[in-house]
Formats: sequence, C-alpha cells, structure tokens
Amino acid sequence: MTELLFIEQLKSEILARSPASRLLPIPPGDDCALVTSTAKGVLFAADMLMEGVHFDLSITTPEHVGRKALAVNLSDIASMAGRPTAVTVCLALPKASGGRLGEALMRGMTDLANEYNVAIAGGDTNAWKGPLVVSVAVLGEPHPKGSVTRGGARPGDWIMVTGALGGSIHGRHLTFSPRVSEASHLHSQYGLTAMIDLSDGLGTDLRHILAQSQVGAALSPSRIPIHPDCGLGPLDSMTHLEHALQDGEDFELLFTVSPDIGPKILRDFSGPGRLPMSHIGQITDQRNQLTWENGTAIEVRGYTHDFGSD
Amino acid sequence: MTELLFIEQLKSEILARSPASRLLPIPPGDDCALVTSTAKGVLFAADMLMEGVHFDLSITTPEHVGRKALAVNLSDIASMAGRPTAVTVCLALPKASGGRLGEALMRGMTDLANEYNVAIAGGDTNAWKGPLVVSVAVLGEPHPKGSVTRGGARPGDWIMVTGALGGSIHGRHLTFSPRVSEASHLHSQYGLTAMIDLSDGLGTDLRHILAQSQVGAALSPSRIPIHPDCGLGPLDSMTHLEHALQDGEDFELLFTVSPDIGPKILRDFSGPGRLPMSHIGQITDQRNQLTWENGTAIEVRGYTHDFGSD
Repeated sequence: MTELLFIEQLKSEILARSPASRLLPIPPGDDCALVTSTAKGVLFAADMLMEGVHFDLSITTPEHVGRKALAVNLSDIASMAGRPTAVTVCLALPKASGGRLGEALMRGMTDLANEYNVAIAGGDTNAWKGPLVVSVAVLGEPHPKGSVTRGGARPGDWIMVTGALGGSIHGRHLTFSPRVSEASHLHSQYGLTAMIDLSDGLGTDLRHILAQSQVGAALSPSRIPIHPDCGLGPLDSMTHLEHALQDGEDFELLFTVSPDIGPKILRDFSGPGRLPMSHIGQITDQRNQLTWENGTAIEVRGYTHDFGSD
Repeated sequence: MTELLFIEQLKSEILARSPASRLLPIPPGDDCALVTSTAKGVLFAADMLMEGVHFDLSITTPEHVGRKALAVNLSDIASMAGRPTAVTVCLALPKASGGRLGEALMRGMTDLANEYNVAIAGGDTNAWKGPLVVSVAVLGEPHPKGSVTRGGARPGDWIMVTGALGGSIHGRHLTFSPRVSEASHLHSQYGLTAMIDLSDGLGTDLRHILAQSQVGAALSPSRIPIHPDCGLGPLDSMTHLEHALQDGEDFELLFTVSPDIGPKILRDFSGPGRLPMSHIGQITDQRNQLTWENGTAIEVRGYTHDFGSD
C-alpha cells in the first residue's frame, strides 16, 4: 500500500467516525485544516513519543501507543484549564509493519479523540527503516476565566492534587484519563492560582510551579496520596512515598488555590463517586525551596534523558 | 547536558531572539503556549522530516534541516493564502550529537521564523539512539476573504504557477522561500479559486486540485516554466519538461483563477523584480482528466513512499 493510499484511507475512516469534525470548517485533505475558534487566543502544545524511549512495542499494543500520544497532549491542555479542540498527527512508521501498525495506532487514538470530542485535523504519514515515532500537536480553547499557568502560586496557597500517585509504569501511564473536564470545572468553581499536569513526577513538576511562581513549598508526607500500584512489581529500594514523589506519568493535576477556598474543594469532592482531592502542603515565600513541613529538604531524583548515556 | 537544561537553553535563546514573541500572551515554558488569534478560525497543519528519508546529514547541514522543517509548514499555510503565526517543534535527536545538532537545527529554524515573524511556541525535545526526526506543527490566521482550498477550481479557470519548476533537489528544496506574502497578495487582489503548494511535483499536486474540485485540466507544454536547475546533475532519461512536471519540492504556488482575471495577473507581474507568473493551462469539465492541450493524457510518475520497499 502506498503512503498516499494509506493516508486517504485513514482520513476517510477518521472523518467518518469523528463527531468532532464539525469543529473543522475545512476538514483534513487540504494543505491545512481550518479549526473553529471563538476565543481571542488558542492554546498550542506538542509532544513526541518514540519507540524504545517512551514505549516498547513488545509489551505495548499500538492502540495504547496511539491513545497515549493523544492523551499526553490532552493533559497539557487540561493543565491550563483549557478545552482541547483539534490535533495533528505525524507518524514515522517502520516499513516492515507500517500499514497495520499505523492503522491500529490511529484506532487507539481515534477512540480517545471521539471520547474527548477532539478533531483529528491532519498531519503527515511516512514510512522508514527506523523505529516508530508519533508526534502530536494539540489546539485548545482557553478557559473563559483565563488560562491557569505555572506562574500564579502565592505564599499561603494550598497545594492540592487529584487522584493518587506513583507506580503508573504498571499500566496507568497508558490508560490514564486526561483530567480535562475536572481542570475546567475546578477553575470555573474555585479560581485556581497555578496548575501543571504530573508528567515528570510530583517532586519535579512542583519545582516547575515554584520556579515560575518564584515561591517555595512545604509538603506533608502523610497527606500525599499513594497509589496502590506503588506496591506492584518487584521490591526495590524506594518507599511507596518515594514512588509517589518521583515516579512520572501520573497525569493527575497538581494545582494551587487560595487557603480560603481549599477546604471547600475538599468538602465538595468528598464522598463516593468523586475524584479524590488531596491537600498535600502549602506554598511558602522561600523561593525554590521544596521541604517537608518539618523543614527537611526534599531530595528529588529528576526524570531526565541524558545525551550520551541511557 | 540533560534534556531539561537543553530545552531551557533553547527556549531562552529563542525567546530572546524572537520578534514574534508578542504573538504569545503565554510564552514557551508552560504546559501550553497561548497564541493570539483574532479570526474565527485558525489554520492548522503539520509535517515531519526524517533523516535518511527527507534529508541526509552527510550532505545537508542541520541548519538547513531546521530551516526546511519550518519552511514546508509555512508553505502549507501559504497555500491557503493564510498568515503563519506560531509553530511547535518536536525533536528526536541522536544521542551522540544531540546537543550540537539540536542547537544548529534550531538556529536555522529560528532565523527563518524571525524572517516570517512566526513565534516558536513550544514543543518537545528528546534524545535517542535512532536518527534525527523533526516534526513541526503550524498555526495560521486565515485570509480575511476566506481560505483558498483545493476544491474551488471551475471549468474555464486559468491554471497558473509562480516561479520555475524542476531540479529543486540540487539545492532549492533546502533554501526556497515559502510564498506566504505572495499567496496572500494574490488572493487579496485577484480572488483565487483554488491553490496548492508544489511539494510532490506539478503533475501530482495538480491532480489533488482536480480531485477536490471534481474537474480536469489541459496543460500547454510550451508554457510550463522550466527551472535552469533541471540541467544540473548527471544526464538522465528524463527531459527538462518531465523534471518540471514530476520533480517534487518546488514549493511554488499552483493556483486557479477566473479567465477574466488571469490576463491581469500576467500584466501586473511582468517586468523586472516581479515574481514570474505563468499561465500553464485551463481547467476543463473532464473530471480527473489531466491532458496536454492536444488531448494526449499526461502520465505522471507519482511521489510515493511504498511500505516494504525503498
């Protein structure tokens, strides 16, 4: 099958299945798509997943890879409290399995796109001798109250997190639900001051908020919500708390909010069927200092890809 | 150097050098950038360049790769008569040379971005053992008169092309100037009916207009503007006209316009210092038929990447 035929087939399939195609006055098939936009600005982000770095096709289905490539981008829009509208998808497909692999990948992606009412607006499909690469760029409508950045946390603000953290490598990193409606709802109801999605781990991502907001943070170890998945897999030298603090790819929301408002969030989200909310600490005026509430510094092993090593 | 440090460094460098950063109320460094948008819709497209498929680093500088990865996307916006505003850039960098390679690539890209007043809004930088992959997604403002698609050509319309075609492989495919202002000007002044940028070659790209517009075309072989670069390189079995018809990556504009308007374009663009415009044929009602003006069918060898072969 030629690249062009494959693209045409994918396009028709995607368009036929996509309830979000009404967001595209000019659909895929031209040089650009035209995406409806009602606000004065659009949120714009992109992420790339590479075989052997971000996933391993011997233990992960292509459907899950496609789903995740979209999900991490939706999570980026969520972390600004925005609403994702459309994505472009660029694929580098291994020649040997390109057609089937691409189809399965797009199936996983399309299912999630439909679930979140996001249009697949176009992109670029190529075959090569190299490993699979999936690059997704996403557009979103900003929240009517304005976007929540990493830069608005103020001393005294509560630090809060959705869900439970750690051990996502045992499966949740592929199947997580981007917190799009939750983030939008939280900002609408409570006016968040700063937010980020947890991709690199609580410790590392909180440091991004501290840096951009020029503040510090004091955390309560007993309040950090530890996911039961921290207990999966072979025993290692890390405690469950360390996993919750350092494991990446939880894709939960880490946000700050005025101390007047925090207790109301805890009340409103208590009870069965609600997404758990945890109050895990306070913002301080100790710029870039990340400590436990007793003043001990928190050491965080980051999530970095060094050049020249594994 | 870690991925994070490298990204931070690139970001600061890009922001410091970018006159287009005023287009970004929320600049790179958050989960998303916020891109200013005044129209009711945004143009959205993406392209991916892969080492060994689209370029060869043993004969192409990384600056040229970065420049081209942006240029092909700007050309996509041009072909709708839009104005590019912002891009995201995803990089898969080979570990051995990642830092230097990424820096040189971003330098080539940033220079072109500044020239076209386009903001680099974010993206994702990774290192791996595989070859270089550059994936760029672009946003643009649609033309105030509406976007020019591939689907508006009508029987009788003139088929026109900017510049001269063929032989781009000898260098122009890396150094071409995306026809952004030219496309916008042409649509403002003359109201184009259909347009595409020439990436896959005149024959193949014209067929896209025919398919979307449900029309045919008759071309005049003597009027097709042949680039002098068709004479470069070793002798092959193709005529210069065949090169002009089949070589890809001219990145000139192929457009159609009412026959009442065509002659005015030729007059207005004649004379020194103007971009050459050629009237190369007419749109016909013979759906999907691509012929010479004497009725002979035009055979076009396409530009396809087959899976499972080179």
